[in-house]
Amino acid sequence: MSDQPLLKVDACFSPFLYPVYADDTSIVVIIDIFRATSAMCTAFEYGAEKIIPVASVDEARAYKAKGYLTGAERDAIQIEGFDFGNSPYHYMDERIKGQTLVLTTTNGTQAIEAARNAYRVVIGSFLNIDALCEWLVAEKRSVLLLCSGWKNKFNLEDAIFAGAVTEKLSAMSDQFKLGDGCLALKYLYQLAHQDPYKFLNYSSHKERLARLNLKKDIKYCLTPNQTRVIPVMKDGALVRMEVLAGSLD
Amino acid sequence: MSDQPLLKVDACFSPFLYPVYADDTSIVVIIDIFRATSAMCTAFEYGAEKIIPVASVDEARAYKAKGYLTGAERDAIQIEGFDFGNSPYHYMDERIKGQTLVLTTTNGTQAIEAARNAYRVVIGSFLNIDALCEWLVAEKRSVLLLCSGWKNKFNLEDAIFAGAVTEKLSAMSDQFKLGDGCLALKYLYQLAHQDPYKFLNYSSHKERLARLNLKKDIKYCLTPNQTRVIPVMKDGALVRMEVLAGSLD
Repeated sequence: MSDQPLLKVDACFSPFLYPVYADDTSIVVIIDIFRATSAMCTAFEYGAEKIIPVASVDEARAYKAKGYLTGAERDAIQIEGFDFGNSPYHYMDERIKGQTLVLTTTNGTQAIEAARNAYRVVIGSFLNIDALCEWLVAEKRSVLLLCSGWKNKFNLEDAIFAGAVTEKLSAMSDQFKLGDGCLALKYLYQLAHQDPYKFLNYSSHKERLARLNLKKDIKYCLTPNQTRVIPVMKDGALVRMEVLAGSLD
Repeated sequence: MSDQPLLKVDACFSPFLYPVYADDTSIVVIIDIFRATSAMCTAFEYGAEKIIPVASVDEARAYKAKGYLTGAERDAIQIEGFDFGNSPYHYMDERIKGQTLVLTTTNGTQAIEAARNAYRVVIGSFLNIDALCEWLVAEKRSVLLLCSGWKNKFNLEDAIFAGAVTEKLSAMSDQFKLGDGCLALKYLYQLAHQDPYKFLNYSSHKERLARLNLKKDIKYCLTPNQTRVIPVMKDGALVRMEVLAGSLD
């Protein structure tokens, strides 16, 4: 038993399934590659100070009325009357520097809501993958990769990212035992990694986004390491990891 | 729109997630490769007339008291006082010929219970894969592959079987549009199909069964086409497809 790693990595394919995987000690990585978690990483890279994720459009509207810069998306489309949708390109904007943003999206913010009682919740995307994995290894805790999916169903792009994280964590450290979900995604990523864009050709959400002319978004969201920021939940809002670390000193 | 197939195949990775995928029209294929659905197919091949799947051990015990031949398994171990566990080898038994069996298992019978309101529920395993796929194509309906998993978590062996079915259905007919879950499993199966036993080396349940000395069971459960029987739910019990078909004439 002694040479069995004590820490595990597993993947949960839907926020709906989260209660089955939840525990009190794992770090939960929220994944919504197209496009919420990619947009969040981008917003911090471009200077946002804080992001308040809210589950409903009504909550977002209430914040907007109070003067917050607010993003709202449903079914891949920006809702009228808000400042941003969930395209990462919307957040490459001078206005967000030093600001607190509010964001509601179809899937990503629902996953954050599902995991609200987890030990720690962080945001993952290809844009911050290396920084994220280095931090996860250093934390020496079990990791749960929570895929937002599409309306609680499995989706391929979140799965491939979870597979990429699994592969990196396995390569960087032998401290983790892989759950079956992760193991499957690691294999999947080995098939996908040379050309994830092409691999996703038949996926449902890529079709959805392509119909909306969002190919540029798709390509950006699949680009590794555009930032070293790791957004982390603290008191109901996302902040940079350094802020959390500072508060723990 | 007109050249878009109207029928879909998708995979649901846990009975817990079934409500997200449920609809009124799809055929639901219950999958519990190690070992419930493999045992069920074997029991019909060896002459069982009917199997009553029950969710709890107490229900199984009540049937046993009434004189039914009864199988009961929890955590991969046969429960004392019952006639069978969920090894397919237990059902290669003269006693079951023409009998009604009762069966409760950790995962498989729970999945059947979850899908009780589906349009049609059938039992799939490698043991009946070709007969199953031929029937599914002929039915011209959407198909949901419901993996029993392990205690509501994803498991690799059910996923690989769902991938095998997806690949066969795609090869046999262009009537189906694949959901993201199926698409991922089809890729996974392409990696696994040359040697599924080896591919499953690191899976959690294979480890569990190997500890219990069940390698022979594992190998049998991965052997395609040992029977042409397709067990189907009718009035709360599993019967052969011919019985259902007869009753519909």
